Amino acid sequence: MSTVTDHQDIKREKILEASYQRFLHYGYSKTTMNEIAGDLSMSKALLYYYFPDKSQLYIAVMRKLANEFINKLIERVAASTDLLSAFNAQIHTHHEFMVNNYNFFDFFRLNDQNLPAEIWEIIGQIHQTEIDQLAASLVRDIEKGAVKPVDDPAAIVDLILDALHGVRVRSMSHKKTGFPLKEHMEEIYHKRLLLIEIFVKGLGC
Amino acid sequence: MSTVTDHQDIKREKILEASYQRFLHYGYSKTTMNEIAGDLSMSKALLYYYFPDKSQLYIAVMRKLANEFINKLIERVAASTDLLSAFNAQIHTHHEFMVNNYNFFDFFRLNDQNLPAEIWEIIGQIHQTEIDQLAASLVRDIEKGAVKPVDDPAAIVDLILDALHGVRVRSMSHKKTGFPLKEHMEEIYHKRLLLIEIFVKGLGC
Repeated sequence: MSTVTDHQDIKREKILEASYQRFLHYGYSKTTMNEIAGDLSMSKALLYYYFPDKSQLYIAVMRKLANEFINKLIERVAASTDLLSAFNAQIHTHHEFMVNNYNFFDFFRLNDQNLPAEIWEIIGQIHQTEIDQLAASLVRDIEKGAVKPVDDPAAIVDLILDALHGVRVRSMSHKKTGFPLKEHMEEIYHKRLLLIEIFVKGLGC
Repeated sequence: MSTVTDHQDIKREKILEASYQRFLHYGYSKTTMNEIAGDLSMSKALLYYYFPDKSQLYIAVMRKLANEFINKLIERVAASTDLLSAFNAQIHTHHEFMVNNYNFFDFFRLNDQNLPAEIWEIIGQIHQTEIDQLAASLVRDIEKGAVKPVDDPAAIVDLILDALHGVRVRSMSHKKTGFPLKEHMEEIYHKRLLLIEIFVKGLGC
């Protein structure tokens, strides 16, 4: 029995990897189930046995990417010596994740406010991990006496994450774009690093 | 000649005031040019002489409101004793403006990313005034020695305004809403006050 399951798990992993490459290089809308089956020399019927449709496949790849992001974030925040470097690790890991997978996220740009519930759940899990990890870092700095005690560390971290998320590059028209443009990512990254430094150190003398 | 112009200006002002009341109480979509003309006991033809369509009328009312906001902001920031109270004045004036005119902004909620260029221009003017006023306050605090010197005061203020704008109330689904819900305005207001205090004072001891 377990051999069958193992075999299925390996096949499932291969599908996810091939799909990820397709979504990354051609985007969600330009990728077909036919092409993915072709990349794996697999029948379309077998592919559909594993994933009932393209959106379910996309969600499964997104879940895998999110887990990798979460593991990397936990590792890097744990290795940080203080709150500022922990936030820098979050900003850096997030930036890397977005830049490396930019085309993959065309699904987000296409669907904008109509993302499926499973995607919101994954976003929620990432967000909760960020809060947990950074709040733990904040508590460590409070215990060390490096940071003033706060009533609710998780709420403070949540507020700072919102603030970081608010950073954008203004276009001529001051128009808001829902998803940042690729050519703005680097500027946003550097602005976030500046913002978090002000947060931790303050503007005052 | 000037009497004619004065007379026209007075009439124009009356149209703007009546339209504002309509837009505020019934929203943009539920207001008709007929009703506005009716409120003023004016022929529809005369109303159209002043404003070619409802959207031009809305833009003119928005421009008037924006000027009032800008004047209030300049006055309050000038009366502030330091950078923190200047930012508090901006947050408070913005909150008051949004809450008092909430229904008026249904036009923004309806059109979201497709706002006319004139509206983006007005938003740009408000934003530029906020930057100018708060950067001047930042420079005053730097000169007093209360705040560390910064390379580009306007860029720092712009970054902080983006951060404040990023503050939101998360719904269960973590879904972003483009325009804040009325019942979230109070919480956003208090979170912004907390955020700006952290900014100016810093998290550190």
